[in-house]
Amino acid sequence: MEKIKVGVLGATGSVGQRFIQLLENHPFFTVTHLAASEKSAGKTYGEVMKSRWKISSDIPAYAKDIVITLPKPTATKGVQLVFSGLDSSIAGEVEAEYAQNDVIVISNSKNHRMDPHVPLMSAEVNSEHLEVLKSQKTSGKIITNSNCTIMGVTISLKPLHDKYGIESVMLFSMQAISGAGYPGVPTMDILGNVVPYISGEEDKAEIEPQKCLGTVENGQIKSASFAISAHCNRVPVFDGHTVCVSVKFKKKPSKEEILKTWKEFSGEPQKLDLPLAPKQPIVYREEDDRPQPRLDLDTGRGMATVVGRLREDSILDWKWVVLSHNTIRGAAGAAVLNAELLYKKGLIPS
Amino acid sequence: MEKIKVGVLGATGSVGQRFIQLLENHPFFTVTHLAASEKSAGKTYGEVMKSRWKISSDIPAYAKDIVITLPKPTATKGVQLVFSGLDSSIAGEVEAEYAQNDVIVISNSKNHRMDPHVPLMSAEVNSEHLEVLKSQKTSGKIITNSNCTIMGVTISLKPLHDKYGIESVMLFSMQAISGAGYPGVPTMDILGNVVPYISGEEDKAEIEPQKCLGTVENGQIKSASFAISAHCNRVPVFDGHTVCVSVKFKKKPSKEEILKTWKEFSGEPQKLDLPLAPKQPIVYREEDDRPQPRLDLDTGRGMATVVGRLREDSILDWKWVVLSHNTIRGAAGAAVLNAELLYKKGLIPS
Amino acid sequence: MEKIKVGVLGATGSVGQRFIQLLENHPFFTVTHLAASEKSAGKTYGEVMKSRWKISSDIPAYAKDIVITLPKPTATKGVQLVFSGLDSSIAGEVEAEYAQNDVIVISNSKNHRMDPHVPLMSAEVNSEHLEVLKSQKTSGKIITNSNCTIMGVTISLKPLHDKYGIESVMLFSMQAISGAGYPGVPTMDILGNVVPYISGEEDKAEIEPQKCLGTVENGQIKSASFAISAHCNRVPVFDGHTVCVSVKFKKKPSKEEILKTWKEFSGEPQKLDLPLAPKQPIVYREEDDRPQPRLDLDTGRGMATVVGRLREDSILDWKWVVLSHNTIRGAAGAAVLNAELLYKKGLIPS
Amino acid sequence: MEKIKVGVLGATGSVGQRFIQLLENHPFFTVTHLAASEKSAGKTYGEVMKSRWKISSDIPAYAKDIVITLPKPTATKGVQLVFSGLDSSIAGEVEAEYAQNDVIVISNSKNHRMDPHVPLMSAEVNSEHLEVLKSQKTSGKIITNSNCTIMGVTISLKPLHDKYGIESVMLFSMQAISGAGYPGVPTMDILGNVVPYISGEEDKAEIEPQKCLGTVENGQIKSASFAISAHCNRVPVFDGHTVCVSVKFKKKPSKEEILKTWKEFSGEPQKLDLPLAPKQPIVYREEDDRPQPRLDLDTGRGMATVVGRLREDSILDWKWVVLSHNTIRGAAGAAVLNAELLYKKGLIPS
Repeated sequence: MEKIKVGVLGATGSVGQRFIQLLENHPFFTVTHLAASEKSAGKTYGEVMKSRWKISSDIPAYAKDIVITLPKPTATKGVQLVFSGLDSSIAGEVEAEYAQNDVIVISNSKNHRMDPHVPLMSAEVNSEHLEVLKSQKTSGKIITNSNCTIMGVTISLKPLHDKYGIESVMLFSMQAISGAGYPGVPTMDILGNVVPYISGEEDKAEIEPQKCLGTVENGQIKSASFAISAHCNRVPVFDGHTVCVSVKFKKKPSKEEILKTWKEFSGEPQKLDLPLAPKQPIVYREEDDRPQPRLDLDTGRGMATVVGRLREDSILDWKWVVLSHNTIRGAAGAAVLNAELLYKKGLIPS
Repeated sequence: MEKIKVGVLGATGSVGQRFIQLLENHPFFTVTHLAASEKSAGKTYGEVMKSRWKISSDIPAYAKDIVITLPKPTATKGVQLVFSGLDSSIAGEVEAEYAQNDVIVISNSKNHRMDPHVPLMSAEVNSEHLEVLKSQKTSGKIITNSNCTIMGVTISLKPLHDKYGIESVMLFSMQAISGAGYPGVPTMDILGNVVPYISGEEDKAEIEPQKCLGTVENGQIKSASFAISAHCNRVPVFDGHTVCVSVKFKKKPSKEEILKTWKEFSGEPQKLDLPLAPKQPIVYREEDDRPQPRLDLDTGRGMATVVGRLREDSILDWKWVVLSHNTIRGAAGAAVLNAELLYKKGLIPS
Repeated sequence: MEKIKVGVLGATGSVGQRFIQLLENHPFFTVTHLAASEKSAGKTYGEVMKSRWKISSDIPAYAKDIVITLPKPTATKGVQLVFSGLDSSIAGEVEAEYAQNDVIVISNSKNHRMDPHVPLMSAEVNSEHLEVLKSQKTSGKIITNSNCTIMGVTISLKPLHDKYGIESVMLFSMQAISGAGYPGVPTMDILGNVVPYISGEEDKAEIEPQKCLGTVENGQIKSASFAISAHCNRVPVFDGHTVCVSVKFKKKPSKEEILKTWKEFSGEPQKLDLPLAPKQPIVYREEDDRPQPRLDLDTGRGMATVVGRLREDSILDWKWVVLSHNTIRGAAGAAVLNAELLYKKGLIPS
Repeated sequence: MEKIKVGVLGATGSVGQRFIQLLENHPFFTVTHLAASEKSAGKTYGEVMKSRWKISSDIPAYAKDIVITLPKPTATKGVQLVFSGLDSSIAGEVEAEYAQNDVIVISNSKNHRMDPHVPLMSAEVNSEHLEVLKSQKTSGKIITNSNCTIMGVTISLKPLHDKYGIESVMLFSMQAISGAGYPGVPTMDILGNVVPYISGEEDKAEIEPQKCLGTVENGQIKSASFAISAHCNRVPVFDGHTVCVSVKFKKKPSKEEILKTWKEFSGEPQKLDLPLAPKQPIVYREEDDRPQPRLDLDTGRGMATVVGRLREDSILDWKWVVLSHNTIRGAAGAAVLNAELLYKKGLIPS
């Protein structure tokens, strides 16, 4: 079976680098084009990234010799699908242009996330939202994934919401610096420090989970109706967002019911045995002091959601801690998983 | 006026070191005795602390030549008051023994905190709780201060509680490593990491503020009746606990009312112009991204509570961020301020 | 071919954990015994290590159910070889006792390192030193590996010493906190700080490379005769020792000669294709700012020595930077490689 | 006596911020002008710096309302002296222009440092170099201070060079991130990491100390003739450069002679009792593991050089560790001290 030809838009950024890493030797996709800004266009990826590659393994050989183009459909002719890690300042238009030119756009950017015709997808959570693709008027389609901060939170909520109904969620994040890209956070701001503010983050965290857990009605996604309050913080951690959540349910489950629900949770990626799917989407740690970024980040090759410290909440019902890898599960990995799902469901036209 | 002779119990620990620093050239108190465990007893403080002094200024000259004793009233004869930074494994008994021997005990340990006859005092917040000292049956009296985590939170709640009534509080802490003492947290556990658990901390955080904000009834302190839910986390910050709080009020104030209430808040330490009292107990920062440990920790010489990011909460009423210096305002400084208050109110018998 | 039955002494420590990780599914060795101190003896490894396992992957399944014994030959009956990560306070005697009881001891401890009858071995560097095993009077034999700090340095010097003769070496290390074990370095000592001192480290660094690069004479190892001056420093890095070296040669090579020598360097582990041998023992990075722990630590699965910044020295001849993984190449990995070499050379009696 | 009117060029940068802090309530100088780039010009300092002030105390009140100008003599009319923390891309020309317009320039930039007519001054070390000011042809004069990395090293060498003659110096630095300014080092590059390279730093470190320790001959400064080899490294420390040095002398002193020489060392700033002069320019710490940034940085209010670990070197003669505060003693503080010296010596024309 021939592989799908794909491009990576925003290939030099943090998320772009993860795309390139995760797509190395991918069974479904072959990267033929890498696109970035004018500064990089015309040079090989290896040349441009020599001092900018920030993942602790070498640049994959396949990518080194690809000559970077601009992120335009005319410049990346032949690709059937693009992964977009573009900056939100340009992602909206560029992605729309690709969709208008028959290309599937798997986007990690925020621009189209809240469009009711665009799935805000986490493949285990809401693959049924793909139905709304039909209502997109372009020949290509846009699929987004949620913000890194709420990715793991939403996964931990999904099976509980289905059974018990979420009524409200307080969430407090401690977010890794890689979430701000490169150069991103200046060391003088975060070394031995915490910053209780991340521009725009709380806004996203308070609306995206409801869309992920929403329903399809008349070809549009209708967000679930619970309330979220978010406190977002930056901490001196390299990768891995840790989120403390307190949750009120419509019908309060027991501790055993919650643990059993998480343990048994499995989605379409697991059923279809997608290449990047973690075997166990939600891994619960029994230890008092887990999850922790340093010890649990690589669970399921960075694709699992690690949960711990389930205990009663004296104001809402239950509270727990969620960890997910912000540049893998929370960004590039989630996007690749979405693309794998489309592929297996035959939704990528050839 | 002659100075009060005081001792420091647990003088070699983190809190003990801060006591020694804060008591240098103190106008009311003169340190005559330093007590610690058997390992240190019999040696001079300077000798013992050569490689254990962890504050970035030299050991005060006055302390260097004091020969350390055991923490027993018979070993520290002549002291009228002791500051206790003892480990909780022994603080309960030792402090009681001092109180039985006519000595005022200003304790930072948790052992007697929840005794309804013992003030859990933050001098700006509840100096009227000193009234219950009369109900203590010993000749000496015990006064405690609250846990470092909730110190600033309680101060930020106090004037609002008085006017608007607290109904519930969600709190989420990011706590400095100095809170665990020395050697305390192993570097392997926290470098580039966060640990979403601190043993015993959430239990304390969920009951101490209510006692601080309680009322005196029949010679006992009766805790206020609101609910608290706490998530406590350790982060790689040296000094300074940052706490995100969401609060529901009995009567919801406006943003302006809250800011005005904080600005105008002042307590007995300010009225009596106590040496360690911050001029402004609550300092509100207007910037989007404050307070931060690195930039705001020294506000009011580490004795002020720094607040920022006041904004509406979509589940409770309001949310904000509180920073206080955990080993100064949250421990030794709060204790010294309590002692200063006793002194000025004539409650230290000579 | 049947696997060699091995034990790990000091199995609960940092080096012990690495042994257990590296020996999972090993083609030559099967771990039958784990030994540690009295506190742990009698319990299963999984039980003891629940909150002490500090590697970011789970405890290997094979180890979890092994019941820990004391480190005594009578307690670990049946093992043909032991890997020792014992604390130096007891390693000397315990290892000797094993050697007297027919067991091969592969030790990472310092106690026997400077004994002229004991190889101080880095398998690529001085496998010919195994010859002195014959002169050990015990039925079992002891083989040690060098200190983590000088491991990579010695490898980078080896092929140059052979061709050009080392005359003197200045070395300045920036050492990771994992080198001090667990709990090891208190966070209060190293967060946002450097400590220009590591007890005993400079002494070892100034004599071990000469023994590694020495010759066998009359059944004993005679150290090479060049001088070393070492400055050893602790820095807030998790894993990976970075060492700056300045070197004077007997016959000064050109830059090209040095680079070519490193590139072509290969030792017996590569010839014998040992399981843990890195394909390229010395990897030179051309970038200005490499090697760095974060980016280069996993080169050759942590078994390669990464070198960079080769440039002329205005006082000695040449200077460069060396990085090696202190708990893999500098400790457990070097030891396992030594054991693999013995195995392939038929030096482990069955 | 009227205060000298001064300006700060590059007032918004890291060094500029320190200037503004150190000049608050200065007995000799009053800041009348602050200059920065076009982005800031025309706005008040308080407005521009709201989110860019990175020192952990508030912006001094005096500076908040000063309207920033461009760094041009016509824009800062009336100043008799400027402190320059300008970026080297423009410092050369701007400083020369000021000197041509009767203004004394106290520069922290590198541009004019190696000009034989310009003192590269550390006030305790080479105040006699002021003699070459006469040979500068402009009406204003330029005085520079050395690079932060070698500031403390040079001070520790100065009295030894005078008595015993330096023959060669190996130096190895571990430099704080504040040395790179703001935003400076991206967190992704340095968190839990070290970078063994700082662009241009080794070049400066290998020539500046010799100029500082040089002699005036025919109205020019002639550098001392010893050799230096430098390894410069970036570490995750906020403030404070730690440097390990190994030194060969023309005539090897004893340990006691070195310690005595350091203890007795005192320069013109001490004789003239300059406001910013540390009482003891060189402070030796006896502890095994000092100096350390966290514990020793504030010695002499950041103006002292802290030395420790003096021991014999097996290749050169002696080795030790030097710490100095890179943005105070190594930059703004050194510059202000130079200006204070000029003032007291009557070298600032009114």
